[in-house]
Amino acid sequence: MKLYSYFRSSASYRVRIALNLKGLDYEYAAVHLRRGGGEHRSADYRALNPQALVPTLVDGERVLTQSLAIIEYLEETHPQPPLLPAAPADRAHVRALAQLVACEIHPLNNLRVLGYLTGELGVSEEAKNRWYRHWVALGLQALEAQLARGPRTGRFCFGDAPGLADCCLVPQLANARRFECDLSGYPTLTRIERACLELPAFQRAAPGAQPDAEA
Amino acid sequence: MKLYSYFRSSASYRVRIALNLKGLDYEYAAVHLRRGGGEHRSADYRALNPQALVPTLVDGERVLTQSLAIIEYLEETHPQPPLLPAAPADRAHVRALAQLVACEIHPLNNLRVLGYLTGELGVSEEAKNRWYRHWVALGLQALEAQLARGPRTGRFCFGDAPGLADCCLVPQLANARRFECDLSGYPTLTRIERACLELPAFQRAAPGAQPDAEA
Repeated sequence: MKLYSYFRSSASYRVRIALNLKGLDYEYAAVHLRRGGGEHRSADYRALNPQALVPTLVDGERVLTQSLAIIEYLEETHPQPPLLPAAPADRAHVRALAQLVACEIHPLNNLRVLGYLTGELGVSEEAKNRWYRHWVALGLQALEAQLARGPRTGRFCFGDAPGLADCCLVPQLANARRFECDLSGYPTLTRIERACLELPAFQRAAPGAQPDAEA
Repeated sequence: MKLYSYFRSSASYRVRIALNLKGLDYEYAAVHLRRGGGEHRSADYRALNPQALVPTLVDGERVLTQSLAIIEYLEETHPQPPLLPAAPADRAHVRALAQLVACEIHPLNNLRVLGYLTGELGVSEEAKNRWYRHWVALGLQALEAQLARGPRTGRFCFGDAPGLADCCLVPQLANARRFECDLSGYPTLTRIERACLELPAFQRAAPGAQPDAEA
Protein backbone atom coordinates (compact mmCIF):
# COMPACT_ATOMS: atom_id res chain seq x y z
CA MET A 1 0.00 0.00 0.00
CA LYS A 2 1.08 3.56 -0.65
CA LEU A 3 -0.09 6.51 1.44
CA TYR A 4 -0.04 10.01 0.00
CA SER A 5 0.39 12.12 3.08
CA TYR A 6 1.58 15.43 4.46
CA PHE A 7 3.30 15.19 7.81
CA ARG A 8 1.22 17.95 9.39
CA SER A 9 -2.17 16.94 7.95
CA SER A 10 -4.54 15.73 10.67
CA ALA A 11 -6.43 13.56 8.25
CA SER A 12 -3.22 11.87 7.09
CA TYR A 13 -2.16 11.42 10.70
CA ARG A 14 -5.42 9.56 11.45
CA VAL A 15 -4.77 7.07 8.68
CA ARG A 16 -1.11 6.62 9.68
CA ILE A 17 -2.24 5.67 13.20
CA ALA A 18 -4.81 3.20 11.85
CA LEU A 19 -2.27 1.55 9.53
CA ASN A 20 0.15 1.20 12.43
CA LEU A 21 -2.49 -0.15 14.82
CA LYS A 22 -3.34 -2.77 12.19
CA GLY A 23 0.36 -3.58 11.78
CA LEU A 24 0.27 -2.79 8.05
CA ASP A 25 3.39 -1.75 6.16
CA TYR A 26 3.06 1.04 3.64
CA GLU A 27 5.13 3.24 1.39
CA TYR A 28 5.07 6.93 2.30
CA ALA A 29 4.58 9.44 -0.53
CA ALA A 30 4.94 13.02 0.67
CA VAL A 31 2.57 15.63 -0.79
CA HIS A 32 3.69 19.07 0.27
CA LEU A 33 0.67 21.30 0.88
CA ARG A 34 2.63 24.56 0.91
CA ARG A 35 5.47 24.10 -1.57
CA GLY A 36 4.94 25.53 -5.08
CA GLY A 37 1.35 26.55 -4.41
CA GLY A 38 0.64 23.09 -3.03
CA GLU A 39 1.65 19.78 -4.61
CA HIS A 40 -1.88 18.50 -3.92
CA ARG A 41 -3.15 20.91 -6.58
CA SER A 42 -0.88 19.47 -9.31
CA ALA A 43 -2.47 17.77 -12.33
CA ASP A 44 -0.80 14.48 -11.42
CA TYR A 45 -2.20 14.44 -7.92
CA ARG A 46 -5.66 15.55 -9.06
CA ALA A 47 -5.71 12.69 -11.56
CA LEU A 48 -5.31 10.39 -8.56
CA ASN A 49 -7.59 12.33 -6.21
CA PRO A 50 -9.93 14.92 -7.79
CA GLN A 51 -10.59 16.31 -4.32
CA ALA A 52 -6.97 17.53 -4.20
CA LEU A 53 -6.81 16.60 -0.54
CA VAL A 54 -4.57 14.33 1.50
CA PRO A 55 -4.56 11.52 2.37
CA THR A 56 -5.00 9.14 -0.54
CA LEU A 57 -4.35 5.44 0.01
CA VAL A 58 -3.51 3.26 -2.98
CA ASP A 59 -4.01 -0.44 -2.39
CA GLY A 60 -3.18 -2.34 -5.58
CA GLU A 61 -5.57 -0.96 -8.21
CA ARG A 62 -7.74 0.77 -5.63
CA VAL A 63 -7.51 4.45 -4.96
CA LEU A 64 -9.11 5.42 -1.66
CA THR A 65 -9.87 8.91 -0.38
CA GLN A 66 -11.30 10.53 2.76
CA SER A 67 -9.60 9.47 5.98
CA LEU A 68 -12.61 7.94 7.73
CA ALA A 69 -13.61 5.97 4.63
CA ILE A 70 -10.02 4.71 4.36
CA ILE A 71 -9.98 3.59 7.99
CA GLU A 72 -13.33 1.78 7.58
CA TYR A 73 -11.83 0.07 4.52
CA LEU A 74 -8.80 -1.04 6.55
CA GLU A 75 -11.18 -2.30 9.24
CA GLU A 76 -13.12 -4.38 6.71
CA THR A 77 -10.10 -5.76 4.87
CA HIS A 78 -7.86 -6.28 7.94
CA PRO A 79 -10.25 -6.86 10.84
CA GLN A 80 -7.58 -7.52 13.48
CA PRO A 81 -7.11 -5.74 15.79
CA PRO A 82 -10.54 -4.13 15.50
CA LEU A 83 -10.80 -0.34 15.57
CA LEU A 84 -14.58 -0.47 16.04
CA PRO A 85 -16.52 -2.42 18.67
CA ALA A 86 -18.90 -5.23 17.70
CA ALA A 87 -22.36 -3.97 18.71
CA PRO A 88 -24.10 -1.54 16.32
CA ALA A 89 -24.94 1.00 19.05
CA ASP A 90 -21.33 0.97 20.24
CA ARG A 91 -20.05 1.32 16.70
CA ALA A 92 -22.36 4.29 16.20
CA HIS A 93 -21.04 5.85 19.42
CA VAL A 94 -17.42 5.54 18.30
CA ARG A 95 -18.19 6.77 14.79
CA ALA A 96 -20.04 9.76 16.22
CA LEU A 97 -17.01 10.68 18.36
CA ALA A 98 -14.78 10.41 15.29
CA GLN A 99 -17.19 12.49 13.21
CA LEU A 100 -17.43 15.14 15.89
CA VAL A 101 -13.74 15.75 15.15
CA ALA A 102 -13.82 15.06 11.41
CA CYS A 103 -17.07 16.88 10.56
CA GLU A 104 -17.34 19.61 13.21
CA ILE A 105 -13.84 20.73 14.21
CA HIS A 106 -11.24 19.88 11.62
CA PRO A 107 -13.04 21.11 8.44
CA LEU A 108 -13.18 24.62 9.85
CA ASN A 109 -9.54 24.75 10.73
CA ASN A 110 -7.52 23.28 7.94
CA LEU A 111 -4.98 25.15 5.89
CA ARG A 112 -7.24 26.08 2.98
CA VAL A 113 -9.93 27.53 5.23
CA LEU A 114 -7.50 29.57 7.30
CA GLY A 115 -5.93 30.78 4.04
CA TYR A 116 -9.34 31.93 2.75
CA LEU A 117 -9.99 33.85 5.97
CA THR A 118 -6.75 35.82 5.86
CA GLY A 119 -6.62 36.03 2.05
CA GLU A 120 -10.07 36.49 0.50
CA LEU A 121 -11.76 37.86 3.60
CA GLY A 122 -8.81 39.94 4.80
CA VAL A 123 -9.24 38.75 8.37
CA SER A 124 -6.37 39.60 10.76
CA GLU A 125 -4.02 36.94 12.14
CA GLU A 126 -5.50 37.53 15.55
CA ALA A 127 -9.10 37.08 14.36
CA LYS A 128 -8.04 33.98 12.43
CA ASN A 129 -6.56 32.49 15.59
CA ARG A 130 -9.72 33.37 17.50
CA TRP A 131 -11.76 31.59 14.81
CA TYR A 132 -9.53 28.54 15.15
CA ARG A 133 -9.80 28.45 18.92
CA HIS A 134 -13.57 29.04 18.86
CA TRP A 135 -14.35 25.93 16.81
CA VAL A 136 -11.79 23.82 18.63
CA ALA A 137 -13.25 24.81 22.01
CA LEU A 138 -16.84 24.20 20.89
CA GLY A 139 -15.98 20.75 19.55
CA LEU A 140 -13.67 19.67 22.34
CA GLN A 141 -16.16 20.77 25.02
CA ALA A 142 -18.77 18.48 23.46
CA LEU A 143 -16.25 15.67 23.13
CA GLU A 144 -15.12 16.09 26.75
CA ALA A 145 -18.78 16.09 27.91
CA GLN A 146 -19.53 12.91 26.02
CA LEU A 147 -16.39 11.06 27.10
CA ALA A 148 -16.36 12.23 30.72
CA ARG A 149 -19.89 11.05 31.38
CA GLY A 150 -19.88 8.04 29.07
CA PRO A 151 -19.94 4.62 30.72
CA ARG A 152 -18.20 3.26 27.64
CA THR A 153 -15.11 5.43 28.06
CA GLY A 154 -12.09 3.53 29.35
CA ARG A 155 -8.38 3.95 29.04
CA PHE A 156 -9.20 4.99 25.47
CA CYS A 157 -12.24 6.66 23.89
CA PHE A 158 -14.04 3.33 23.89
CA GLY A 159 -12.94 0.77 26.46
CA ASP A 160 -9.36 -0.31 26.93
CA ALA A 161 -8.13 -0.68 23.38
CA PRO A 162 -7.39 2.15 20.95
CA GLY A 163 -9.78 2.59 18.03
CA LEU A 164 -11.27 4.88 15.41
CA ALA A 165 -12.13 7.72 17.80
CA ASP A 166 -8.58 7.77 19.20
CA CYS A 167 -7.23 7.96 15.63
CA CYS A 168 -9.13 11.25 15.31
CA LEU A 169 -8.66 12.65 18.81
CA VAL A 170 -4.87 12.57 18.96
CA PRO A 171 -4.23 14.49 15.70
CA GLN A 172 -6.87 17.06 16.66
CA LEU A 173 -5.22 17.72 20.02
CA ALA A 174 -1.79 17.99 18.38
CA ASN A 175 -3.23 20.51 15.95
CA ALA A 176 -4.88 22.47 18.78
CA ARG A 177 -1.52 22.71 20.56
CA ARG A 178 0.11 24.16 17.46
CA PHE A 179 -2.43 26.96 17.66
CA GLU A 180 -1.80 27.34 21.38
CA CYS A 181 -5.29 26.38 22.46
CA ASP A 182 -5.79 26.02 26.20
CA LEU A 183 -6.46 22.32 26.78
CA SER A 184 -6.74 22.46 30.57
CA GLY A 185 -10.54 22.14 30.40
CA TYR A 186 -10.37 18.69 28.82
CA PRO A 187 -8.93 16.33 31.43
CA THR A 188 -10.56 13.25 29.92
CA LEU A 189 -9.31 14.02 26.43
CA THR A 190 -5.74 14.70 27.53
CA ARG A 191 -5.72 11.61 29.75
CA ILE A 192 -6.73 9.47 26.75
CA GLU A 193 -4.17 11.25 24.59
CA ARG A 194 -1.40 10.35 27.06
CA ALA A 195 -2.47 6.70 26.98
CA CYS A 196 -2.38 6.76 23.17
CA LEU A 197 1.03 8.39 22.99
CA GLU A 198 2.53 5.59 25.05
CA LEU A 199 1.88 3.26 22.13
CA PRO A 200 4.42 2.88 19.29
CA ALA A 201 1.58 2.92 16.71
CA PHE A 202 0.79 6.50 17.70
CA GLN A 203 4.41 7.53 18.19
CA ARG A 204 5.44 6.37 14.73
CA ALA A 205 2.45 8.18 13.17
CA ALA A 206 3.30 11.56 14.72
CA PRO A 207 4.05 14.47 12.37
CA GLY A 208 7.62 14.81 13.65
CA ALA A 209 8.37 11.17 12.84
CA GLN A 210 7.46 11.43 9.14
CA PRO A 211 10.04 11.57 6.30
CA ASP A 212 8.73 14.99 5.20
CA ALA A 213 8.74 16.49 8.72
CA GLU A 214 9.98 20.04 9.11
CA ALA A 215 11.04 21.84 12.25
CA MET B 1 -37.64 5.64 16.98
CA LYS B 2 -37.72 9.36 17.48
CA LEU B 3 -35.80 11.79 15.30
CA TYR B 4 -34.87 15.23 16.61
CA SER B 5 -34.71 17.26 13.44
CA TYR B 6 -34.94 20.71 11.93
CA PHE B 7 -36.69 20.83 8.58
CA ARG B 8 -33.93 22.84 6.91
CA SER B 9 -30.95 21.00 8.41
CA SER B 10 -29.02 19.09 5.75
CA ALA B 11 -27.78 16.56 8.25
CA SER B 12 -31.34 15.87 9.47
CA TYR B 13 -32.50 15.60 5.87
CA ARG B 14 -29.88 12.89 5.20
CA VAL B 15 -31.19 10.77 8.06
CA ARG B 16 -34.82 11.31 7.06
CA ILE B 17 -34.01 9.96 3.59
CA ALA B 18 -32.21 6.93 5.05
CA LEU B 19 -35.10 6.15 7.42
CA ASN B 20 -37.54 6.36 4.51
CA LEU B 21 -35.38 4.24 2.19
CA LYS B 22 -35.27 1.58 4.92
CA GLY B 23 -39.04 1.85 5.34
CA LEU B 24 -38.72 2.71 9.04
CA ASP B 25 -41.43 4.64 10.88
CA TYR B 26 -40.32 7.33 13.29
CA GLU B 27 -41.69 10.10 15.44
CA TYR B 28 -40.63 13.60 14.39
CA ALA B 29 -39.44 15.97 17.13
CA ALA B 30 -38.82 19.46 15.81
CA VAL B 31 -35.82 21.38 17.17
CA HIS B 32 -35.95 24.95 15.98
CA LEU B 33 -32.42 26.23 15.29
CA ARG B 34 -33.42 29.89 15.14
CA ARG B 35 -36.25 30.35 17.62
CA GLY B 36 -35.32 31.70 21.08
CA GLY B 37 -31.59 31.65 20.38
CA GLY B 38 -31.88 28.08 19.14
CA GLU B 39 -33.75 25.25 20.84
CA HIS B 40 -30.72 23.02 20.21
CA ARG B 41 -28.83 25.09 22.78
CA SER B 42 -31.38 24.44 25.56
CA ALA B 43 -30.30 22.48 28.64
CA ASP B 44 -32.83 19.74 27.83
CA TYR B 45 -31.51 19.20 24.34
CA ARG B 46 -27.88 19.36 25.47
CA ALA B 47 -28.60 16.68 28.06
CA LEU B 48 -29.64 14.48 25.17
CA ASN B 49 -26.92 15.60 22.76
CA PRO B 50 -23.95 17.51 24.25
CA GLN B 51 -22.95 18.54 20.73
CA ALA B 52 -26.11 20.69 20.55
CA LEU B 53 -26.54 19.71 16.92
CA VAL B 54 -29.32 18.07 14.98
CA PRO B 55 -30.13 15.34 14.20
CA THR B 56 -30.34 13.04 17.19
CA LEU B 57 -31.99 9.65 16.78
CA VAL B 58 -33.38 7.90 19.84
CA ASP B 59 -33.91 4.18 19.39
CA GLY B 60 -35.22 2.72 22.65
CA GLU B 61 -32.51 3.47 25.24
CA ARG B 62 -29.99 4.44 22.61
CA VAL B 63 -29.18 8.02 21.80
CA LEU B 64 -27.40 8.38 18.48
CA THR B 65 -25.72 11.48 17.07
CA GLN B 66 -23.91 12.52 13.87
CA SER B 67 -25.85 11.85 10.70
CA LEU B 68 -23.40 9.48 9.02
CA ALA B 69 -22.96 7.43 12.19
CA ILE B 70 -26.75 7.23 12.49
CA ILE B 71 -27.11 6.03 8.90
CA GLU B 72 -24.41 3.38 9.40
CA TYR B 73 -26.30 2.26 12.52
CA LEU B 74 -29.52 1.95 10.52
CA GLU B 75 -27.60 -0.02 7.88
CA GLU B 76 -26.30 -2.45 10.50
CA THR B 77 -29.57 -2.87 12.38
CA HIS B 78 -31.87 -2.87 9.32
CA PRO B 79 -29.75 -4.20 6.46
CA GLN B 80 -32.51 -4.21 3.83
CA PRO B 81 -32.49 -2.46 1.44
CA PRO B 82 -28.74 -1.84 1.69
CA LEU B 83 -27.44 1.74 1.48
CA LEU B 84 -23.86 0.56 1.03
CA PRO B 85 -22.55 -1.96 -1.51
CA ALA B 86 -21.03 -5.27 -0.42
CA ALA B 87 -17.36 -5.06 -1.45
CA PRO B 88 -15.00 -3.12 0.86
CA ALA B 89 -13.52 -1.00 -1.96
CA ASP B 90 -17.00 -0.07 -3.17
CA ARG B 91 -18.11 0.73 0.35
CA ALA B 92 -15.06 2.97 0.75
CA HIS B 93 -15.93 4.70 -2.54
CA VAL B 94 -19.50 5.45 -1.42
CA ARG B 95 -18.39 6.55 2.05
CA ALA B 96 -15.80 8.87 0.50
CA LEU B 97 -18.47 10.50 -1.67
CA ALA B 98 -20.67 10.98 1.39
CA GLN B 99 -17.77 12.39 3.40
CA LEU B 100 -16.83 14.76 0.63
CA VAL B 101 -20.19 16.39 1.32
CA ALA B 102 -20.28 15.86 5.08
CA CYS B 103 -16.64 16.74 5.88
CA GLU B 104 -15.64 19.18 3.14
CA ILE B 105 -18.71 21.17 2.08
CA HIS B 106 -21.43 21.19 4.68
CA PRO B 107 -19.34 21.99 7.82
CA LEU B 108 -18.24 25.26 6.28
CA ASN B 109 -21.70 26.36 5.36
CA ASN B 110 -24.04 25.62 8.20
CA LEU B 111 -25.95 28.19 10.16
CA ARG B 112 -23.51 28.57 13.07
CA VAL B 113 -20.53 29.13 10.78
CA LEU B 114 -22.31 31.69 8.62
CA GLY B 115 -23.46 33.40 11.81
CA TYR B 116 -19.87 33.62 13.09
CA LEU B 117 -18.72 35.15 9.80
CA THR B 118 -21.29 37.95 9.81
CA GLY B 119 -21.34 38.32 13.61
CA GLU B 120 -17.88 37.88 15.16
CA LEU B 121 -15.90 38.61 12.03
CA GLY B 122 -18.15 41.38 10.73
CA VAL B 123 -18.10 39.97 7.20
CA SER B 124 -20.64 41.49 4.77
CA GLU B 125 -23.64 39.54 3.48
CA GLU B 126 -22.08 39.59 0.05
CA ALA B 127 -18.74 38.19 1.28
CA LYS B 128 -20.61 35.57 3.33
CA ASN B 129 -22.46 34.44 0.22
CA ARG B 130 -19.20 34.33 -1.71
CA TRP B 131 -17.71 32.14 1.05
CA TYR B 132 -20.70 29.83 0.82
CA ARG B 133 -20.49 29.52 -2.95
CA HIS B 134 -16.71 29.07 -2.89
CA TRP B 135 -16.81 25.94 -0.72
CA VAL B 136 -19.86 24.55 -2.47
CA ALA B 137 -18.19 24.98 -5.88
CA LEU B 138 -14.91 23.44 -4.73
CA GLY B 139 -16.68 20.41 -3.27
CA LEU B 140 -19.23 19.91 -6.03
CA GLN B 141 -16.53 20.17 -8.72
CA ALA B 142 -14.65 17.31 -7.06
CA LEU B 143 -17.85 15.32 -6.64
CA GLU B 144 -18.84 15.89 -10.28
CA ALA B 145 -15.32 14.85 -11.43
CA GLN B 146 -15.48 11.65 -9.41
CA LEU B 147 -19.01 10.70 -10.43
CA ALA B 148 -18.72 11.71 -14.10
CA ARG B 149 -15.65 9.55 -14.69
CA GLY B 150 -16.50 6.76 -12.28
CA PRO B 151 -17.38 3.40 -13.79
CA ARG B 152 -19.43 2.69 -10.68
CA THR B 153 -21.80 5.62 -11.20
CA GLY B 154 -25.22 4.59 -12.43
CA ARG B 155 -28.68 6.02 -12.15
CA PHE B 156 -27.59 6.93 -8.62
CA CYS B 157 -24.19 7.75 -7.07
CA PHE B 158 -23.39 4.04 -6.95
CA GLY B 159 -25.15 1.80 -9.43
CA ASP B 160 -28.89 1.74 -9.88
CA ALA B 161 -30.16 1.86 -6.32
CA PRO B 162 -30.07 4.87 -4.00
CA GLY B 163 -27.64 4.75 -1.09
CA LEU B 164 -25.57 6.63 1.45
CA ALA B 165 -23.97 9.03 -1.03
CA ASP B 166 -27.37 10.00 -2.45
CA CYS B 167 -28.60 10.69 1.10
CA CYS B 168 -25.86 13.34 1.30
CA LEU B 169 -25.95 14.68 -2.24
CA VAL B 170 -29.63 15.64 -2.40
CA PRO B 171 -29.69 17.79 0.77
CA GLN B 172 -26.43 19.49 -0.27
CA LEU B 173 -27.85 20.46 -3.66
CA ALA B 174 -31.07 21.72 -2.04
CA ASN B 175 -28.98 23.83 0.27
CA ALA B 176 -26.87 25.17 -2.61
CA ARG B 177 -30.03 26.25 -4.43
CA ARG B 178 -31.19 28.20 -1.39
CA PHE B 179 -27.98 30.20 -1.67
CA GLU B 180 -28.50 30.61 -5.41
CA CYS B 181 -25.42 28.66 -6.42
CA ASP B 182 -25.07 28.04 -10.15
CA LEU B 183 -25.45 24.27 -10.60
CA SER B 184 -25.15 24.20 -14.39
CA GLY B 185 -21.59 22.84 -14.19
CA TYR B 186 -22.70 19.64 -12.47
CA PRO B 187 -24.74 17.66 -15.01
CA THR B 188 -24.03 14.31 -13.37
CA LEU B 189 -24.99 15.52 -9.90
CA THR B 190 -28.23 17.13 -11.05
CA ARG B 191 -29.13 14.07 -13.16
CA ILE B 192 -28.72 11.86 -10.08
CA GLU B 193 -30.69 14.36 -8.00
CA ARG B 194 -33.60 14.17 -10.44
CA ALA B 195 -33.58 10.37 -10.23
CA CYS B 196 -33.64 10.60 -6.42
CA LEU B 197 -36.46 13.10 -6.32
CA GLU B 198 -38.69 10.75 -8.29
CA LEU B 199 -38.69 8.44 -5.27
CA PRO B 200 -41.22 8.89 -2.44
CA ALA B 201 -38.47 8.25 0.15
CA PHE B 202 -36.73 11.42 -0.95
CA GLN B 203 -39.92 13.40 -1.50
CA ARG B 204 -41.21 12.69 2.00
CA ALA B 205 -37.82 13.66 3.49
CA ALA B 206 -37.73 17.08 1.82
CA PRO B 207 -37.62 20.16 4.05
CA GLY B 208 -40.96 21.43 2.74
CA ALA B 209 -42.69 18.17 3.70
CA GLN B 210 -41.73 18.32 7.40
CA PRO B 211 -44.14 19.26 10.20
CA ASP B 212 -41.94 22.24 11.18
CA ALA B 213 -41.57 23.55 7.61
CA GLU B 214 -41.78 27.28 7.07
CA ALA B 215 -42.29 29.15 3.85
